[in-house]
Amino acid sequence: MDKIKVGIIGAGGYGGCGAIELLLNHPYAEIRGLVAKQDVGRPISELYPHLTGFCDLPVFAPDDQDCPDDFQVVFFATPDGVGQSTAPAWIKKGIKVIDYSGDFRFNDLETYKGYATRIGRPQEHASPELLPQSVYGLAELHRNEISGTNLVGNPGCFAVSCILGLSPAIKSNLIEPDSIIFDAKTGVSGAGKTPNPTFHYPARYESMNAYKISGHQHVYEIERELSLLAGQDIKVTFTPHVVPLCRGILTTIYGQLNEGQNLKTAEEAYRSFYKNDVFVRVFGPEKLQVSTNVRGSNFCNISVNVDERTGKLIVVSLIDNLVKGQAGSAVQNMNIMFGLDETEGLLHPGSFP
Amino acid sequence: MDKIKVGIIGAGGYGGCGAIELLLNHPYAEIRGLVAKQDVGRPISELYPHLTGFCDLPVFAPDDQDCPDDFQVVFFATPDGVGQSTAPAWIKKGIKVIDYSGDFRFNDLETYKGYATRIGRPQEHASPELLPQSVYGLAELHRNEISGTNLVGNPGCFAVSCILGLSPAIKSNLIEPDSIIFDAKTGVSGAGKTPNPTFHYPARYESMNAYKISGHQHVYEIERELSLLAGQDIKVTFTPHVVPLCRGILTTIYGQLNEGQNLKTAEEAYRSFYKNDVFVRVFGPEKLQVSTNVRGSNFCNISVNVDERTGKLIVVSLIDNLVKGQAGSAVQNMNIMFGLDETEGLLHPGSFP
Amino acid sequence: MDKIKVGIIGAGGYGGCGAIELLLNHPYAEIRGLVAKQDVGRPISELYPHLTGFCDLPVFAPDDQDCPDDFQVVFFATPDGVGQSTAPAWIKKGIKVIDYSGDFRFNDLETYKGYATRIGRPQEHASPELLPQSVYGLAELHRNEISGTNLVGNPGCFAVSCILGLSPAIKSNLIEPDSIIFDAKTGVSGAGKTPNPTFHYPARYESMNAYKISGHQHVYEIERELSLLAGQDIKVTFTPHVVPLCRGILTTIYGQLNEGQNLKTAEEAYRSFYKNDVFVRVFGPEKLQVSTNVRGSNFCNISVNVDERTGKLIVVSLIDNLVKGQAGSAVQNMNIMFGLDETEGLLHPGSFP
Amino acid sequence: MDKIKVGIIGAGGYGGCGAIELLLNHPYAEIRGLVAKQDVGRPISELYPHLTGFCDLPVFAPDDQDCPDDFQVVFFATPDGVGQSTAPAWIKKGIKVIDYSGDFRFNDLETYKGYATRIGRPQEHASPELLPQSVYGLAELHRNEISGTNLVGNPGCFAVSCILGLSPAIKSNLIEPDSIIFDAKTGVSGAGKTPNPTFHYPARYESMNAYKISGHQHVYEIERELSLLAGQDIKVTFTPHVVPLCRGILTTIYGQLNEGQNLKTAEEAYRSFYKNDVFVRVFGPEKLQVSTNVRGSNFCNISVNVDERTGKLIVVSLIDNLVKGQAGSAVQNMNIMFGLDETEGLLHPGSFP
Repeated sequence: MDKIKVGIIGAGGYGGCGAIELLLNHPYAEIRGLVAKQDVGRPISELYPHLTGFCDLPVFAPDDQDCPDDFQVVFFATPDGVGQSTAPAWIKKGIKVIDYSGDFRFNDLETYKGYATRIGRPQEHASPELLPQSVYGLAELHRNEISGTNLVGNPGCFAVSCILGLSPAIKSNLIEPDSIIFDAKTGVSGAGKTPNPTFHYPARYESMNAYKISGHQHVYEIERELSLLAGQDIKVTFTPHVVPLCRGILTTIYGQLNEGQNLKTAEEAYRSFYKNDVFVRVFGPEKLQVSTNVRGSNFCNISVNVDERTGKLIVVSLIDNLVKGQAGSAVQNMNIMFGLDETEGLLHPGSFP
Repeated sequence: MDKIKVGIIGAGGYGGCGAIELLLNHPYAEIRGLVAKQDVGRPISELYPHLTGFCDLPVFAPDDQDCPDDFQVVFFATPDGVGQSTAPAWIKKGIKVIDYSGDFRFNDLETYKGYATRIGRPQEHASPELLPQSVYGLAELHRNEISGTNLVGNPGCFAVSCILGLSPAIKSNLIEPDSIIFDAKTGVSGAGKTPNPTFHYPARYESMNAYKISGHQHVYEIERELSLLAGQDIKVTFTPHVVPLCRGILTTIYGQLNEGQNLKTAEEAYRSFYKNDVFVRVFGPEKLQVSTNVRGSNFCNISVNVDERTGKLIVVSLIDNLVKGQAGSAVQNMNIMFGLDETEGLLHPGSFP
Repeated sequence: MDKIKVGIIGAGGYGGCGAIELLLNHPYAEIRGLVAKQDVGRPISELYPHLTGFCDLPVFAPDDQDCPDDFQVVFFATPDGVGQSTAPAWIKKGIKVIDYSGDFRFNDLETYKGYATRIGRPQEHASPELLPQSVYGLAELHRNEISGTNLVGNPGCFAVSCILGLSPAIKSNLIEPDSIIFDAKTGVSGAGKTPNPTFHYPARYESMNAYKISGHQHVYEIERELSLLAGQDIKVTFTPHVVPLCRGILTTIYGQLNEGQNLKTAEEAYRSFYKNDVFVRVFGPEKLQVSTNVRGSNFCNISVNVDERTGKLIVVSLIDNLVKGQAGSAVQNMNIMFGLDETEGLLHPGSFP
Repeated sequence: MDKIKVGIIGAGGYGGCGAIELLLNHPYAEIRGLVAKQDVGRPISELYPHLTGFCDLPVFAPDDQDCPDDFQVVFFATPDGVGQSTAPAWIKKGIKVIDYSGDFRFNDLETYKGYATRIGRPQEHASPELLPQSVYGLAELHRNEISGTNLVGNPGCFAVSCILGLSPAIKSNLIEPDSIIFDAKTGVSGAGKTPNPTFHYPARYESMNAYKISGHQHVYEIERELSLLAGQDIKVTFTPHVVPLCRGILTTIYGQLNEGQNLKTAEEAYRSFYKNDVFVRVFGPEKLQVSTNVRGSNFCNISVNVDERTGKLIVVSLIDNLVKGQAGSAVQNMNIMFGLDETEGLLHPGSFP
């Protein structure tokens, strides 16, 4: 088959770089154009020297007329606000869009407003007319809708970890819906490429902290997805932490088991829920799950545990925030949107140590 | 005054080294003898070269007749089982004992058995007759008892973080007692000095994981202390995690607020509880608490937060596991046992970056 | 074409794991059997959980009759001494051998003895009759010989970095042969998988040190290769250091420029020497070379500089010690031995950050 | 005695923070005022929360009339250019000055110009009249002059490591003066507190690189000091590297041994040279020197080695760049300037792990 022609907007950040790395390795896709506001005119391999000889395409300015535009799909590896302003033009030309930000994760304006408020953005959405057709790009939950859309809102990295980690419990009614706590630990790459006092090496190499306690914006998509599965409104407590590693999110999830539920029923629920999902691996308590088990890969490893003394379900959910939590999910979504096997270009184990 | 003569059993581990570092800086204490099973005959500064010129005392074997024994207090910086076997001999001679392990953290044999089972030790205690007189060495809760005893069971590092982090909430009845979850993240030094595949640098530098889910032994002393404060039996969920830094424990604590409680009452309860405790610093949500704020010092920083949407109290408790979590608490206990100001030798801020 | 059938002896170490990762991604090779002394009977994916679903082959004991042996090539990812004892049997059966250790890096017994003494091994070689036919597996220097042999001694990781970094200078007579200094810095993975007090995380996370000053065994192969190029006997000073990262060797190389040589002649010599070598990238002083530029890839990046004030050539040579320094070179050698394009399965840029 | 009243200009950087930490622990000094351009009005403990309760002094703007100025000594923990502009006013008032930058490291304008050019500053010096009286603040070499001056140019961190590491060899004529190579490896804190793409955690946690090859400005003070000792003009090759740790400089020093020199004469020369220097510890090849041996302390550890095969002296010199390489040397200089024992407030071993 002909290769899918891909454009990447926001190519200069970690999310753009991740997409390039994966697409270079994809048998049915080719990168045709890179766009970014910074480093215009420089080959991307100057920004990311490991790409030298692999991808030396130049960075075009967003409004450059000479930028190639014969794309079939555009990745918006951009912050909130960019996609909603410029995606419509691509959509209109029949080009599919996958947006990394929160711009298209919500189908209704009301939920978007809550999200937008959290991140300090205006409540208005630049393309509200596109919201109803956008699909939340978590393939394990929305594979069918993704295959039929031209506009995907790629999920937030924490959200991937939380939603995959708890969906089977919600679906199978394992726990009390008002008892849910997500305690998430992320590596520093989740904060992106822009230098910052908090992530300056000497300040970070032996630091950890909680942040945005009860105020992180990913809680909106988590609650929306879990509520959809539950058929009822669910509110959750979510606390993100930063720990000094580069890649990885480990989320520890707590919920009060319902009467009659136990480790056995929980494990069964999880294995059954994900029995057709290549990228989710379910484990019981017997195998220690370490974040390097998924580093560099598109997998989500889930460890199901129960504290018999307190009747708590304790699930540990692990992803690489830059792969399954971002560029990997985006490529998986692209595969589905183009009718490919969703694993194309993504079946790699990562490396160790 | 004459300096307190200190002996350290188990001097070769990180806990012994930490005690040496603090005692070198103590105006009223001097180290008189070092004992360990390994590295016998070598100066301690060969094991810990940074001590060269500061402490070059030789390591004596436990049963060496030539080992100095004119101590007034002995630190057992030893694993479980050592203190309970040999402490009685020192106690009998009128020498005070501070034991780092779980050997003397429990006053009754029954609770000790639960603890011992968890760590895979025999249920018998070698010196059950000493248990009733031993005092749990968390100065902020047991200052008076510590001042009157000659036998202290120094608290576990996780336990210090959890108990200090939740005691005011229990004391002031802020939360529902059956809703308590401790999600703890520790640096690697907590696992001690012995090499191990899990803590081999290449395996750990970018790894994080939960372990002993629902099965960590520190839960016993946490529940005992909280139950004492509550006047009722309390069970908690406790999940330890290892993250790739050396020093520090950050515990995120969750509890369901009781009717009428809120951020204001919570902050007041915490500030009031610790108003006379030099080594505990209470903060509200406005100040981000990072583990380096307490690294190298004997402080516990506590951040009090409330999630209004879910009615959860969320407390972040930070210590240096090797100082307030171990050797610092031991020296603080020594100060109290000898009638000194409890801060002697401990008023240092650590260093940054 | 049919896939090359590969066996890996010593599959349980980092060198074995690296070979598995690369071969999984190789279009013309397949792993047929894994052998190791430890973890016999366990699937390799239990030792390296990131391989789950990618390579779940069991580990066979070295003498297990049931171990598959229909190999066309065997990788000895084993310490010194193993290959020389057991390689002859494979060679005799017409199976090619690539040995990671120093067992087959030297063609004469005399040089081997010097090397063996350095690493504390007996001076006798178990298969001296094989030495004359063995080829030193640095493809950039010995491509032709490798293509004609069935026995390759894969180079030491430091040696790859040093030899590639200085060969053009020697070949073009840029520097005085008795002025050569290699100052090498390696990540910790070079020390392998076995836990060790020196590489215990808390001891290493903020430590660096020189070691084996003037006594590292790789100096033998470095001097042999440089002497061959120079047509005269060359002695070098080589100092290895460990720094706290996982992957990477950065070697800074110093030599006194000969009369008439300068930055321009030096850059030309390097570019010319490597003009046909895909895996060596030559840079001038204008581009900062960081170890992540080659991390996870089979590339060697070389930065050519001159200190005008002192007349020194200063070359910085960067590799990933586990790829170009070990498993990557092994696969590159396999490709050449089987008449494949030497880049098969190796054209990956690594990932960032 | 009354405590020395200290003011710190540039208090907000790592160099200011280091001075505060040391002075808090100094029996005969007290911090009276903090000055910085940024964070004016905030307590220093907001910038460095570990200082909470130890030093909560506010930051004054440089020109604030209300800033306390009853100092006896002022630390300029400021970048190049600040001290030379404003130090004269303090000196005139009889207040001693210790400047961290290169502003007062050179006694003649000519050498300063070379230095200034390297760092891209104008060749003019704002206070050339002060240069003759300024003293280079490396106490081990200039103790007497420091005791008699009111203006000290504190040495550069790399320079401390290099000069202390080679002075005995020069003084005793151990090596050929034109054979000197310094290969230095520094932790990231040496680059200061300002965020930067190169030191952003994800870019740095597993990166190392050489930089300013043959072009680092510290080479001027190194050559000046060595030339003074040699009684002849010495040129050196100096290559700095950054490795991913926070604190520490390890410099590996190479020189060609003169006829008749060997390990024995070298060790003797070093031990003799430093026999009265508390803060320099000399070791032979038998003891591995790791950077943590000096982390957090004012010590310089020196390991003397010889490569018999090539006749090279190989010295490894270790310091903590923020202590002996900066604030520690400044406090040591202050002690000497005020007639105190030079070790006051500095006799600490640091901590491990």
